[in-house]
Amino acid sequence: MPLLVQKYGGTSVGTVERIEAVADKVIGYKELGNDMVVVVSAMSGETNRLVSLAQEIDPQAKGRELDVLLTTGEQVTIALLAMAFEKRGYPARSYTGGQVGIITDSAHNKARIKSINDENIRRDLEAGRIVVVAGFQGIDEYNNITTLGRGGSDTTGVALAAALKADECQIFTDVDGVYTTDPRVEPEARRLNTITFEEMLEMASLGSKVLQIRAVEFAQKYQVPLRVLSSFETGEGTLITTEYEAEDIMEQALISGIAFNRDEAQLTINGVADTPGVAYQILGPISDANIEVDMILQNIGADGTTDFTFTVHRNDFDTALASLQKTAENLKAREVSGNNKIVKISIVGVGMRSHAGIASRMFEVLAKEGINILMISTSEIKISVVVDEKYLELGVRALHEGFGLNKDPE
Amino acid sequence: MPLLVQKYGGTSVGTVERIEAVADKVIGYKELGNDMVVVVSAMSGETNRLVSLAQEIDPQAKGRELDVLLTTGEQVTIALLAMAFEKRGYPARSYTGGQVGIITDSAHNKARIKSINDENIRRDLEAGRIVVVAGFQGIDEYNNITTLGRGGSDTTGVALAAALKADECQIFTDVDGVYTTDPRVEPEARRLNTITFEEMLEMASLGSKVLQIRAVEFAQKYQVPLRVLSSFETGEGTLITTEYEAEDIMEQALISGIAFNRDEAQLTINGVADTPGVAYQILGPISDANIEVDMILQNIGADGTTDFTFTVHRNDFDTALASLQKTAENLKAREVSGNNKIVKISIVGVGMRSHAGIASRMFEVLAKEGINILMISTSEIKISVVVDEKYLELGVRALHEGFGLNKDPE
Repeated sequence: MPLLVQKYGGTSVGTVERIEAVADKVIGYKELGNDMVVVVSAMSGETNRLVSLAQEIDPQAKGRELDVLLTTGEQVTIALLAMAFEKRGYPARSYTGGQVGIITDSAHNKARIKSINDENIRRDLEAGRIVVVAGFQGIDEYNNITTLGRGGSDTTGVALAAALKADECQIFTDVDGVYTTDPRVEPEARRLNTITFEEMLEMASLGSKVLQIRAVEFAQKYQVPLRVLSSFETGEGTLITTEYEAEDIMEQALISGIAFNRDEAQLTINGVADTPGVAYQILGPISDANIEVDMILQNIGADGTTDFTFTVHRNDFDTALASLQKTAENLKAREVSGNNKIVKISIVGVGMRSHAGIASRMFEVLAKEGINILMISTSEIKISVVVDEKYLELGVRALHEGFGLNKDPE
Repeated sequence: MPLLVQKYGGTSVGTVERIEAVADKVIGYKELGNDMVVVVSAMSGETNRLVSLAQEIDPQAKGRELDVLLTTGEQVTIALLAMAFEKRGYPARSYTGGQVGIITDSAHNKARIKSINDENIRRDLEAGRIVVVAGFQGIDEYNNITTLGRGGSDTTGVALAAALKADECQIFTDVDGVYTTDPRVEPEARRLNTITFEEMLEMASLGSKVLQIRAVEFAQKYQVPLRVLSSFETGEGTLITTEYEAEDIMEQALISGIAFNRDEAQLTINGVADTPGVAYQILGPISDANIEVDMILQNIGADGTTDFTFTVHRNDFDTALASLQKTAENLKAREVSGNNKIVKISIVGVGMRSHAGIASRMFEVLAKEGINILMISTSEIKISVVVDEKYLELGVRALHEGFGLNKDPE
């Protein structure tokens, strides 16, 4: 019998009515002849309520006791969902992370799964029960309650699917799949039927918040077919899978999607003596200030010096600029400049591995629209450009059409 | 180092402010040189909120999943209280019932404790930590979450105190001890310094809802000194202990308190042929209707027949009367009568074991006030009378003064 692991997030189980709708949906899949394991998050708003309670006591609340507190959120949902199944005449059993045997390391608030004991679940499935598991949580080897960090319910779903060798892990969310780009920017954006893990990871890291990056990495590592679907509509969603399996459909598609990031700011230091260790001297203080750096570019400057540019989140711009100016004095650099009115646009696709000329096609499309490129960065399956923020929508739409993403591949 | 197990109920931890007050109170005891184990209930209102969620899905919600749901209530409190200790610089660790190793039978919603594994707690105490334990919950031998039923947090406290051989189990509640009678009826009611387990059990079963009966039974069985104190005021509270220890103080006190029950109704069947099995024939149908019977009296009637009287909760009066009338026809009894405007007043005290004349003193006091006694029932340490409800306050006050309870024994 096929085995499906389905995960429903906080919005999908946000009220008792929605929990009942999830029960009906799951029963629909069960009636089609599937064994069903359902992973759920806390009801939307519940985690924030619990965090607020903790912060009333300690604004810096973290560690072991925060995990004890937060895991009650999912525990409420599993009990209610299991009751909804039983009410409908479908035997069900709920499990907390600890009960199912999701063993993690001891890094409270951001634990990583080490192993899963699937014994209880297998026994229940054999007995015809629907199994309901609390997402986001586990226990360490000393029986302390841990959490995987926010959004960790996706990871729980994928890890369970891997442990149980499920036929598919289905993530139900409030969008109906992965799109060629953000439909709010390009109304002609199209839902993808399939996308590779690598592409999905690039899209996710660029701000397409459909899935947690860790869950996608986990699915890729254990080769778990992952599907994103809507909790509220019917449809096939998007299947995220290995390149091999996606190949047939992807053959004609050079790129899969256009991702973008609005919150970028760029900092440049020019005329630095090009000596070993200079990159560390520039970025060390930025890292010490807990600022995450996104793109990093180093290029040959005038007179044997080097020019160094990097991007940070726009909120960190002022702090980073002050830090860089101090570094520039120490390094006797020529000048420091910055721009916090920039955005990053990226094209993502495994097709560019085997096809030449994709970069120049991208630059041609942008040039035609008179969009000036400030920075370029490439990886194996992604090309990113930094442009003035006023060109974001224009650039995304031009690339979307330029690479034929508005046309159905079939 | 002395070891105290303290239990704080839902009202005592009803808000974050109150949880912080509990933390300060516990730290005060710790600073006096005690090892501290703290058992807490769910924040007041939380259990009802969870029950309502369950009932939205299934109005008859019960069993395994209800326990999974309800136990989150205490889990929230233990985390918040442990955080409050840590915030104050006192190392602490929280445990759910399952984590501490409170093993129960599998009777969901009303499980009974079978054993406690005190290993974790002892290790924490040795490390100087304050231990916080979720009341009301445990796990069965298959790792299913169970609850002890409402009010079971008292039982958790006593059971832990027994397992740990604690010097005292202190139950903090919204009253500051056990009184000679209800101060709302007799303003001169006095807090008792000590009371025996047996007396406490009689008081509790008669409606003095200071402690759960099960917790007192448990404490008596394992000889755990039990103290009732106020969460909100300072004071010594009332120590509930074995007769032997209480003896010195109790010596002069013939009785410890006056209990009463307002919700009684009485039913009588007269002129039943006195044959074996008649009690069962009368009470069987009452029991089948799920009506609990309180007092039962059988007396010799006229012409070799017997008269049979029993009391039930006032809410069950009509159902019980209808049932009894049917039984009377079958048994060809002479008549059936009933009265739902009665109350029960009881005097409780181990002193009556060794002192004659207490019953007659009680009847004398009541006679002086012109109170007509409808029924009398006695046990080893209790004498109960049933009187018309209009005499309740008068009777309680008269007995309170008649047995010198308004005077301080010291």
